[in-house]
Amino acid sequence: MLVYEGKAKRVFSTDDEQVYRIEYKDEVTAGNGAKKDVMAGKGRLNNLITSRFFELLMDAGYPSHFIERLSDTEQLVRKVDITPLEVVVRNIAAGSITKRLGFTKGESFRQPLVEFYYKKDELNDPLVTDDHVKLLGIADDVEIAELKRQALAINDHLIALMNRMNLDLVDFKIEFGKDKDGHILLADEISPDTCRIWDKETKENFDKDVYREETGSLIDTYIHFYNKMEAL
Amino acid sequence: MLVYEGKAKRVFSTDDEQVYRIEYKDEVTAGNGAKKDVMAGKGRLNNLITSRFFELLMDAGYPSHFIERLSDTEQLVRKVDITPLEVVVRNIAAGSITKRLGFTKGESFRQPLVEFYYKKDELNDPLVTDDHVKLLGIADDVEIAELKRQALAINDHLIALMNRMNLDLVDFKIEFGKDKDGHILLADEISPDTCRIWDKETKENFDKDVYREETGSLIDTYIHFYNKMEAL
Repeated sequence: MLVYEGKAKRVFSTDDEQVYRIEYKDEVTAGNGAKKDVMAGKGRLNNLITSRFFELLMDAGYPSHFIERLSDTEQLVRKVDITPLEVVVRNIAAGSITKRLGFTKGESFRQPLVEFYYKKDELNDPLVTDDHVKLLGIADDVEIAELKRQALAINDHLIALMNRMNLDLVDFKIEFGKDKDGHILLADEISPDTCRIWDKETKENFDKDVYREETGSLIDTYIHFYNKMEAL
Repeated sequence: MLVYEGKAKRVFSTDDEQVYRIEYKDEVTAGNGAKKDVMAGKGRLNNLITSRFFELLMDAGYPSHFIERLSDTEQLVRKVDITPLEVVVRNIAAGSITKRLGFTKGESFRQPLVEFYYKKDELNDPLVTDDHVKLLGIADDVEIAELKRQALAINDHLIALMNRMNLDLVDFKIEFGKDKDGHILLADEISPDTCRIWDKETKENFDKDVYREETGSLIDTYIHFYNKMEAL
């Protein structure tokens, strides 16, 4: 039974109450849905890439909602209640932070920056402070600290993986959820849709900026990225 | 010698290197300068009201840059390096937070909310998190904690003063600076230009919203507010 349909995925319930099946769609959007297309093969690539990242994180001891990949476009995940925050980690300035705060594109941050955005389409996912998160009743101090701790640990591990692919992890967005026991688990996806990734030498984009800025073929870029994952 | 001219004030150096003279202008602006007028008497009212608030805070043991009122439109202040943050304290939801985060106008917060906005006209004074403040090199952890501590202490005292005027302090914006010894001091002004104030019963505005929303005479409102200060 369809539980939820988002921009890029459909979530279905299964016979096991604690397990969901996620189906990746071929839709691609940018700017909170302002730009939108259908691209054959995109759902498959995002599912393959995300599944591989979750497997690699699991091997390294980082838990997530991921159970297993079922098919080219489907995976099984643990049921979690999604925390309505987009957790963004930035290593290098790019995208919105250059426009909002005047950082220069390409500038490395002294230390990784964690930002929270309130997932609320009608408000355009605004940036929120820790105090906002508490006032909105989304998370308390302990949970906020745990979200940041996990986000930074995942960042460390992803940077190491990308290094082996000769890529720089500029920034990425992740989401978390709580399982039935109240544990905070990494959820959603990790893919070039949700990361900004540059080639270490050429600074070429391996991410959705190719689509946002119309600088090349999104599908070719994602295939190229997936092929590079063989190094892992 | 003129040191700085802002939207509502001119700052002059004096014979004492550590002392500035501030002259309040009759200009009124809103929306980061998008709306702008000149209103005879406004500079005088803001100077009288701000001077009185700073005196009352001083009497209660809260230091600020304020030394003394010189004339109807002028005051002497300690020279400080202004920290480029607008520090906003909110007790009741109104203004930008209702639009950005969906809080209902008039809703009381469980506890006062402190927000930092990066003072940068060309960026439109964006909201920043503590981590942004650190990355921008504006303040470190200890200074951020001190800014919040002072902002909340000033809030407590201003709420008590407004109570005696039968008014609710909805929210306000303050600025801080560092004196030559590195001490963080309350600076800038406290007036209906920088506070949102409602009558406890009628919810009538005693602040610049009268101008922003064109619901009445700004000068009459500020005179009314200043007269109410006689209760203090």
